[in-house]
Amino acid sequence: MPKVVDHDQRRNEIAEAAAQIIAEQGMEGCTMLAISQAAGVTTGAVTHYFRDKNAIVLAALRWADESLEARTLRAFEEHKDIASIVLAALPTDRASRIQWLVWGVFSDYATRVPALMTELRERDAEWIAFARSIIEKLNGQGKLGDLVDIELEAKMFVAMIDGLGCHAAVDPKTWPEKELRRIVEYYLARHEAVSIANHQR
Amino acid sequence: MPKVVDHDQRRNEIAEAAAQIIAEQGMEGCTMLAISQAAGVTTGAVTHYFRDKNAIVLAALRWADESLEARTLRAFEEHKDIASIVLAALPTDRASRIQWLVWGVFSDYATRVPALMTELRERDAEWIAFARSIIEKLNGQGKLGDLVDIELEAKMFVAMIDGLGCHAAVDPKTWPEKELRRIVEYYLARHEAVSIANHQR
Repeated sequence: MPKVVDHDQRRNEIAEAAAQIIAEQGMEGCTMLAISQAAGVTTGAVTHYFRDKNAIVLAALRWADESLEARTLRAFEEHKDIASIVLAALPTDRASRIQWLVWGVFSDYATRVPALMTELRERDAEWIAFARSIIEKLNGQGKLGDLVDIELEAKMFVAMIDGLGCHAAVDPKTWPEKELRRIVEYYLARHEAVSIANHQR
Repeated sequence: MPKVVDHDQRRNEIAEAAAQIIAEQGMEGCTMLAISQAAGVTTGAVTHYFRDKNAIVLAALRWADESLEARTLRAFEEHKDIASIVLAALPTDRASRIQWLVWGVFSDYATRVPALMTELRERDAEWIAFARSIIEKLNGQGKLGDLVDIELEAKMFVAMIDGLGCHAAVDPKTWPEKELRRIVEYYLARHEAVSIANHQR
């Protein structure tokens, strides 16, 4: 009986292998050969699933972004505190560190490939929309004070998280999980302080 | 009479050419040939000034970082408002965009080259110290409120600026100077709000 191949699974395994190569060796090490070896398949199998290198890089970014998103949404649905939801989106272990490094390499590479820039913009906009929904929720609970501008707060917040994430992915020794949590909790406490102070006026 | 060569100037020109190549083509396009062509010198001249590729990449990062630092310090010494000082550090034109892109590529590359990681850490720490000195100054003027933790505020602030800068360098259409200014001014206004509210308690 012929072996049944799950094509979606195979495709996803190659995307994940590409993400690992990109995170460990950058675009300069991202070759068909390196990806096929990491995935344990032939280069023919890689070209069967992906038209060209840019298609693989795009699949790697989607795998990385969807992994981070799934982890963050899981924390959200488990009704974790806000700091823990934010921490779930940040690089705090090997897997999430690879995902953030892929984001970083992809961002730079997208400046040279217009189709990838479109994807980057869309995914950035989705994270800002997600931040916005959390901020709206906090604001509805009166936790952010009267002066909040939801749109600007969401952009500022995403910028801060992206800055923390990039630093922590590149240099986890200087930015360990404990340090990230301190900074995120400080950010949230500052906002609560505005709210409490405003309510006392 | 033999032509007098200013070696420091020549070295700096090659570093700047390397920065341009790194920003435009990433590490995968950063070859001795591409750098020498961009600098208008022979590959022999490049290898005369730099031991190997990593030495050039390091010189490119130093050129980029010192350019950003000089622009920021100039705004600081001209007693510009805080938002304008911050804007001077962000990518708002072609030159500063190149400098930020070099930072981004270097950060990723440094994960694979321990000596470069040491440099990255030192320069990151210097920016955090600079942010700290501004925050201490603002705090001394009573502009930040009682609840401020200078160390965490500086790290949060640098993370936010780095996130904004990376986004704006990669995608200046979505993050133009005007938008960066709105976000930075919003950040500053939120902090002033904490302070005013605290003083009224």
